[in-house]
Amino acid sequence: MAKEKLSIVKIGGNIIEDEVSLKSFLDLFSNLEGKKILVHGGGKRATQVASKLGIESKMVNGRRITDAETLEVITMVYGGLVNKNIVAQLQALQVDSIGLTGADANSIYSEKRPIKDIDYGFVGDVKEVNYQSIDKLIQAGFTPVFCAITHNGKGQLLNTNADTITSQVAIGMSRLYDTTIYYCFELNGVLENINDKNSVIRLIDSTIYKNLLQDGIISDGMLPKLENCFDALKNGVKAINMGNTSMLTKENNNFTTITL
Amino acid sequence: MAKEKLSIVKIGGNIIEDEVSLKSFLDLFSNLEGKKILVHGGGKRATQVASKLGIESKMVNGRRITDAETLEVITMVYGGLVNKNIVAQLQALQVDSIGLTGADANSIYSEKRPIKDIDYGFVGDVKEVNYQSIDKLIQAGFTPVFCAITHNGKGQLLNTNADTITSQVAIGMSRLYDTTIYYCFELNGVLENINDKNSVIRLIDSTIYKNLLQDGIISDGMLPKLENCFDALKNGVKAINMGNTSMLTKENNNFTTITL
Repeated sequence: MAKEKLSIVKIGGNIIEDEVSLKSFLDLFSNLEGKKILVHGGGKRATQVASKLGIESKMVNGRRITDAETLEVITMVYGGLVNKNIVAQLQALQVDSIGLTGADANSIYSEKRPIKDIDYGFVGDVKEVNYQSIDKLIQAGFTPVFCAITHNGKGQLLNTNADTITSQVAIGMSRLYDTTIYYCFELNGVLENINDKNSVIRLIDSTIYKNLLQDGIISDGMLPKLENCFDALKNGVKAINMGNTSMLTKENNNFTTITL
Repeated sequence: MAKEKLSIVKIGGNIIEDEVSLKSFLDLFSNLEGKKILVHGGGKRATQVASKLGIESKMVNGRRITDAETLEVITMVYGGLVNKNIVAQLQALQVDSIGLTGADANSIYSEKRPIKDIDYGFVGDVKEVNYQSIDKLIQAGFTPVFCAITHNGKGQLLNTNADTITSQVAIGMSRLYDTTIYYCFELNGVLENINDKNSVIRLIDSTIYKNLLQDGIISDGMLPKLENCFDALKNGVKAINMGNTSMLTKENNNFTTITL
């Protein structure tokens, strides 16, 4: 029997930080048909608030070092300011949303990243997605809105990469649904020529991906994202779309779809 | 047919701000039998964060004047920092909690307080509790944890008194449940003699209340709280208990119960 469809949409800091972009995105999201989940980051806003509070933001390899003070800021900004404003705006658009961290409804369990070369602090690696619990909310008619925070089940919140939350939630929900991820970002999609924003590769499957790698077309920045995508696809996610927010409309076909 | 029981517990800033008190309260709350809802304030913590961010806290008649900047702080502190840490700690105690503002699940609709003598800013007066929506969460096995924020249905979050949220949610849920409120505060209960903390009046009904008023025993601070209680009772709430957190245990009977 065919499973019902579920869309999981991820937006990053560039959309969240601009009021007009966010409003425009939420309009598109509200019109997206069927059951859906939103995942958001919140990056720069946390850095700004931390800075105002006199807390220095330390980044290593693009990841935030999360000491206790920084975790408080992240909990305030991601879990409070950003998440609750998105929820309020979605409610105004008749989307009956509910804002969540991974602690809420015990939805995403993670473990503090082990210290190797770098101590990332209170950063969590996702270990288990409680898809039954998330589905209870969906079945009750709610649209979950996740921020980039999880918990370890022992009372500790943990800062967690929003892309990872997206793929892990999608993998979990694939047990119950035909799951499609939409990664909204600045580019129109995966580009054949990084200098030509219109050179979108419309479809990438395993074979095409192999060829793109051999031809050196995948940029260093895109490589981990795509590896992450194929990991999600191998674990049950049906399709992954990458592009700007207008890919949520039926008018725009110029984005990248990734399948196995 | 007798309705099922539902307990609604409210805690204030004095418990939240002290890690040990909060932990001890959450232990008691986790052991409270039956379906339940938690409502929390968060007062001083918001003032501290606001002060660090260089935002002056303006209070009039014990109410916070909530300008746009202050609302951001409240959303961060109540909706993020306090709420999500409580949820994470409850999960560690096996309470499958879910943290909410009134925007989440469209649960509490309010209107911005009209400007009369004082402009309170982004402060909401509760107009409607979506008890069906809250009940969907309860029926799904979750324990709602409300912070003191509501929304106007048009995308605007509003700072809202936690005592009012408690009584309004209790009134709403009374359509479906036999609802009891527990107001946890510093005192052991309503006191016959304000200077004797053990002079708890164990039961106040309408007749006793009238007599207490005539005898001038109700202090100015307690008067609005009790008026609020009788309003809730007249609107369907079964009983209201006021005292310290140990009233949640069966060992302590020394608190005030208010009934019609």
